[in-house]
Amino acid sequence: MSRPVALLSDFGYRDAYVGVMKGVLLARCPGVQVVDLTHGVPAHDVLAGALYLLSAAPYFPVDTLFLAVVDPGVGGERRGVCLRSGGRLFVGPDNGLLWPAASSCGRPEAFHLANPRWWLPETSSTFHGRDIFSPVAAALAAGRAPEDLGPAIPDPVRLELPPPFVEEGGASGEVILADHFGNLVTNLRPADLGHPEAGEVRFEIAGQALPGPSTHYGAAPAGSLVVVLGSFGYYEIAVNEGNAAIALGIGRGARIQARAAA
Amino acid sequence: MSRPVALLSDFGYRDAYVGVMKGVLLARCPGVQVVDLTHGVPAHDVLAGALYLLSAAPYFPVDTLFLAVVDPGVGGERRGVCLRSGGRLFVGPDNGLLWPAASSCGRPEAFHLANPRWWLPETSSTFHGRDIFSPVAAALAAGRAPEDLGPAIPDPVRLELPPPFVEEGGASGEVILADHFGNLVTNLRPADLGHPEAGEVRFEIAGQALPGPSTHYGAAPAGSLVVVLGSFGYYEIAVNEGNAAIALGIGRGARIQARAAA
Amino acid sequence: MSRPVALLSDFGYRDAYVGVMKGVLLARCPGVQVVDLTHGVPAHDVLAGALYLLSAAPYFPVDTLFLAVVDPGVGGERRGVCLRSGGRLFVGPDNGLLWPAASSCGRPEAFHLANPRWWLPETSSTFHGRDIFSPVAAALAAGRAPEDLGPAIPDPVRLELPPPFVEEGGASGEVILADHFGNLVTNLRPADLGHPEAGEVRFEIAGQALPGPSTHYGAAPAGSLVVVLGSFGYYEIAVNEGNAAIALGIGRGARIQARAAA
Repeated sequence: MSRPVALLSDFGYRDAYVGVMKGVLLARCPGVQVVDLTHGVPAHDVLAGALYLLSAAPYFPVDTLFLAVVDPGVGGERRGVCLRSGGRLFVGPDNGLLWPAASSCGRPEAFHLANPRWWLPETSSTFHGRDIFSPVAAALAAGRAPEDLGPAIPDPVRLELPPPFVEEGGASGEVILADHFGNLVTNLRPADLGHPEAGEVRFEIAGQALPGPSTHYGAAPAGSLVVVLGSFGYYEIAVNEGNAAIALGIGRGARIQARAAA
Repeated sequence: MSRPVALLSDFGYRDAYVGVMKGVLLARCPGVQVVDLTHGVPAHDVLAGALYLLSAAPYFPVDTLFLAVVDPGVGGERRGVCLRSGGRLFVGPDNGLLWPAASSCGRPEAFHLANPRWWLPETSSTFHGRDIFSPVAAALAAGRAPEDLGPAIPDPVRLELPPPFVEEGGASGEVILADHFGNLVTNLRPADLGHPEAGEVRFEIAGQALPGPSTHYGAAPAGSLVVVLGSFGYYEIAVNEGNAAIALGIGRGARIQARAAA
Repeated sequence: MSRPVALLSDFGYRDAYVGVMKGVLLARCPGVQVVDLTHGVPAHDVLAGALYLLSAAPYFPVDTLFLAVVDPGVGGERRGVCLRSGGRLFVGPDNGLLWPAASSCGRPEAFHLANPRWWLPETSSTFHGRDIFSPVAAALAAGRAPEDLGPAIPDPVRLELPPPFVEEGGASGEVILADHFGNLVTNLRPADLGHPEAGEVRFEIAGQALPGPSTHYGAAPAGSLVVVLGSFGYYEIAVNEGNAAIALGIGRGARIQARAAA
């Protein structure tokens, strides 16, 4: 039995780039189970990819290999890496993409994918997902150890999510993700606000005052704004049966304030 | 061997929500075969999701488990259910989404997913697809019986597709789906019109008079409107090598008339 | 063990058409491994589908079955075919879609899918992907020989990619694909230009003079145009961390000139 492989990229759904990677995986690790996490990461958006990977990794089997490619620096100086953390393996570019997810599962060890023995015989400088990361992932899924792929390195790129600012009587944060439904995921968590009850906190975003968190989207009338504790564990601004990103005209980076109720 | 699992949702292809559900399935039912039906159901559109599920379910193996999530009421009063029908299982919210497909395969029995033993240890009120439906589906795919998940219930929500109006000398219906190609799927079937020959019936939609059904799209010149009996078993308005929804400027809900040819 | 099946279509990601095909495959070849190449081929665009298939097929296992449907002529005179080439099988409409990929893997033999024994019991004239190609593919994946599906035919439709014009001191070509990132893939290869060094060639596209090829996207400043040898083996115009198709306002069919550096 090989490790299951979960794929994430910014390759979208129009081209065959993702399909090609699956071809390499199947050719080098016959029968391997491959599932898609998402390929809808915005082009070149390493932070968004890192967030998606972080949100999903803990729910997968502990022997999963995550093959993730958001790689604006392909062919340049950036290294390819394998991170090993709590049994899980993460393969991709060393640009921080893998770090939040890997470090959420344990203390990551890092290996530089320097040994061309595990690459395709010919490698391009524009598609390491196909030429390096997929064949390396296939070798790992089939049982090879990260130590065989190249030397351990002490300094993989560490990407940190933007932290909130905790102030007296409240906190200030930002929208870190606008999802498919237009829900605005913030970087504020209950712990940042002292685990308040719903009546003890107020939010403000884009000039709109909002009440404390509701238990679910449908607690507000259809079409109305609502704050919920979302499935990422962060506060999230939504419109019940609607789209908050469109309704408010905002997206990632927008500021949000949380204050104790007067 | 576990049951194959077919996934449908309105989660789209940008976020990792679908990927997370696959992670839970793999973690709790190792090696389970998971295929995607579609995740492009319009957000919160229970009827569209029900139609897609209905169109696909009969073609799957008889032991398939369908895990479907279009769930605007998540976290509120709506129940989670498992329907069992003709060997197949359907898991998701009790809002009618599963009903047309399940009742097309037999007489559904319904079970309320009330037993938290089969849920994730922590459940959010915003993502039951991950926290309740996926782990329950994994247990069922691995062989658990619906009876173990919670009590049988007599009153699952029954969703009916909008029926056509059959009149003397014709019928009046509506567009129930505009597909990726812009083909307009109606709710009119040959039986509603007395199984007419092509020359015996005329259609009218959006002020356009159309001849009787052709055998295939290419029976009309490229760029021209054509009526065919589509793969859902309903009459469908198309533009050969074009997009009827754009050409006519209409979509779901638009009225269509069928009348005996003069 | 059955052959792995790779799927490609222009069915998009909104409807359940692809899901239905997977249902038929699983019902008739239980446990078959199915992976998606892409379903984002532009509607009715046989050439684009052929290019994607060509780019991916060589990387898949040698026993892979490719099931590809871009089929504007469904239900009309066009035949259904199976091509066999270098161990791989290709199933779909006989409109050229399969030809470039199959002929890149060897000398294709062609079979007309004329024997209804391997089709679904009822076949529509609008969805052969479900009614003919999928059940035929399932039979082939399970071990059936192409000879059983229908007679060998000598004249499958041969689709050729548009060739470049090689002139004295240069070559003239065109954009054959604008990908998800806005990269403009041309039909010019190093061999067409005598395998030049970067300093020995200049490109011109959409009135813009461009230097010779760089080794990777990041060789240009962020936001700047760059020519690279892309992963298809063709020269490709890109904007580093940007979108060349948008920046230049061009897409498929746009002309590109390559000339020896002055």
